[in-house]
Amino acid sequence: MESSAPPRVHLDNGGRAPWHPLAREALLQALDDGWADPRRLHAEGRRAARLLDGAREAVAAVLGARTEEVRFTHGHTAALHRAVTAGAAGRRRGGRRIVVGATERAAVLHAADAAGERETVAVDRLGRADAGAFAAAVSRPGVALAALQHANGEVGTVQPVEGVHDAARAAGVPLLVDAGASLGHARVPATWDLLAADPADWGGPAGVGVLAARGRVRLPGTGPEDPEPWAPGGVSVPLAFASAVALEAVQADLAAAGAHRRELVDRIRAAVAGVPDVEVVGDPDTRLPHVVTFSFLYVDGEALVTELDRQGFAVGSGSACTASTLEPSHVLAAMGVLTHGNVRIALDRATSEADVERFLAVLPPAVERVREALGVRGL
Amino acid sequence: MESSAPPRVHLDNGGRAPWHPLAREALLQALDDGWADPRRLHAEGRRAARLLDGAREAVAAVLGARTEEVRFTHGHTAALHRAVTAGAAGRRRGGRRIVVGATERAAVLHAADAAGERETVAVDRLGRADAGAFAAAVSRPGVALAALQHANGEVGTVQPVEGVHDAARAAGVPLLVDAGASLGHARVPATWDLLAADPADWGGPAGVGVLAARGRVRLPGTGPEDPEPWAPGGVSVPLAFASAVALEAVQADLAAAGAHRRELVDRIRAAVAGVPDVEVVGDPDTRLPHVVTFSFLYVDGEALVTELDRQGFAVGSGSACTASTLEPSHVLAAMGVLTHGNVRIALDRATSEADVERFLAVLPPAVERVREALGVRGL
Repeated sequence: MESSAPPRVHLDNGGRAPWHPLAREALLQALDDGWADPRRLHAEGRRAARLLDGAREAVAAVLGARTEEVRFTHGHTAALHRAVTAGAAGRRRGGRRIVVGATERAAVLHAADAAGERETVAVDRLGRADAGAFAAAVSRPGVALAALQHANGEVGTVQPVEGVHDAARAAGVPLLVDAGASLGHARVPATWDLLAADPADWGGPAGVGVLAARGRVRLPGTGPEDPEPWAPGGVSVPLAFASAVALEAVQADLAAAGAHRRELVDRIRAAVAGVPDVEVVGDPDTRLPHVVTFSFLYVDGEALVTELDRQGFAVGSGSACTASTLEPSHVLAAMGVLTHGNVRIALDRATSEADVERFLAVLPPAVERVREALGVRGL
Repeated sequence: MESSAPPRVHLDNGGRAPWHPLAREALLQALDDGWADPRRLHAEGRRAARLLDGAREAVAAVLGARTEEVRFTHGHTAALHRAVTAGAAGRRRGGRRIVVGATERAAVLHAADAAGERETVAVDRLGRADAGAFAAAVSRPGVALAALQHANGEVGTVQPVEGVHDAARAAGVPLLVDAGASLGHARVPATWDLLAADPADWGGPAGVGVLAARGRVRLPGTGPEDPEPWAPGGVSVPLAFASAVALEAVQADLAAAGAHRRELVDRIRAAVAGVPDVEVVGDPDTRLPHVVTFSFLYVDGEALVTELDRQGFAVGSGSACTASTLEPSHVLAAMGVLTHGNVRIALDRATSEADVERFLAVLPPAVERVREALGVRGL
């Protein structure tokens, strides 16, 4: 890269954010102290086990859970799969229906289809499930499990998990809360029976996930032959330890980092709304502090991501991930908003006002260029 | 640790070895270059994808496979589960029997039970499956998959995979070769249709595994909703990259490191055989270069591991892993040898002759002390 070129701005920090500096340091320490198998009896194994237990304890403290209620998995997708499968199986006597929000992650929707009979609760145009409708669905007989995300990682909208948890508890149905887009960015309420969270989303490593289950939730394992059904074969202790250290670091700064990014998102929402033929989606107020999504008419999402990348800005898109997932976002479809020409911004804690202003200066001409290439004249 | 104390000697390097120095360097590089999601379209994502593809290419070169035949998984156990499940499903029309060796890993045995009908081929007292019996079992109608490890990680015995692969191929049955204890330590023959290997065993990280499938093996995925059925949600690119760099490093030195450790194992086998009431197990010749196992009469394995740990030596044991797996080793049981009082040694490339001599000096009195504590007088 030439020294005269402005530095790249990475605005795609949802799900896979750059490493928090303290997570990197923690990883290096754990490479030395935690390389051994924590299931072994010797000193090296016991040292690795202590690091792993310490990591569980740190995550539990943030969640308001007990250490033994927190496990590490092989990633967020694995945690969601396991939570749905085991949560549904644990209540099999109560029925096989699994009630989910329409904007849950694909991993939850597919696991629910595989583990039982899925009942999907619709969301409104802001992406929010109606608490009353969700509570009613959970309260009917035959429900094994309910799943509602704390906040949606694509559009930022926060869901009414507290009210839904009250209803689920009254019905004796465990509630899985996917906090994969929120833990590390916003306070996560304690109103869950199962909870999954994603270290890679808060500046920790990919390749490890968090799954918590309240002691009152009875989860069947896969039998004595598999001492770690949450993560067959075990997890990387250095990754787990780095995850916990990153979480402690971002929690210490949660309010300030949230307020800073909330203002930047407000600025982006206001400025983008001025671009012709755009729809800014998601709840403008009850939302994650760092996520904002908008869709342009007459624009191909993949082309726009590529054009912005050429200009030095990395952004996400609900309709441009990889060749194999180039289908329209089911989240945007469920909200009834534009599903193409989509840009998803997830701000890092380090994103500055100057970064945002540079992006906002580059965005309208980039949209214009993509429209021109498609033969659509700007207004 | 006091400076006057001799350094600890780690002799439990099977399955979770200390990091190879080059793997550590590679990890640090990949933390900078490979933190992004390799499925993303922007520059950071493409850079991570290049690192991941490079890692697949490097592993493929060692295996004599094509890059697209090699995938990373969430660990060795996950690779074995996936290989058995997908391998059996891919041939479902051909039958549902899965032929396995008696000393395969628990992950293979349990996955075979879950995916079909398991037929287990016995091993002899050295731990070797009879090639003729295995070939006959594979050749009968109704077999979906066969699984035979290249070498056993507990006792070191090498299996006749070449001959079995000839028979499997003639019968049109895919052969899964578990190279989890051998890749990085010995030449792995190219006679496989599916192969699983374990980076943590060769000085790479835990939390990532290798699964290779020949192009002629048709493996069903889990559908378009899951672009990476091998590793739902994806793997850690830094861990995958570090795995590949470690493998290249140990392959460059394979013959020398093998010869050095083979001699040390010969020395251990000879010396341990002189301890009263001991059985040294596994094939003394056709074996892994670095693994040796022996069992003592009148000794509790966990107590002996703990006593040796106190003396500064970390060893493994087939009967002392964690509280949840304190059952006798199914490998030793299948061989018809002593299943208790077991010590498993897996030498590191860096293990020196002096380390081994110190261990051999400490072992007999340690055995004696454990026997005395149990009320058994030494001979």
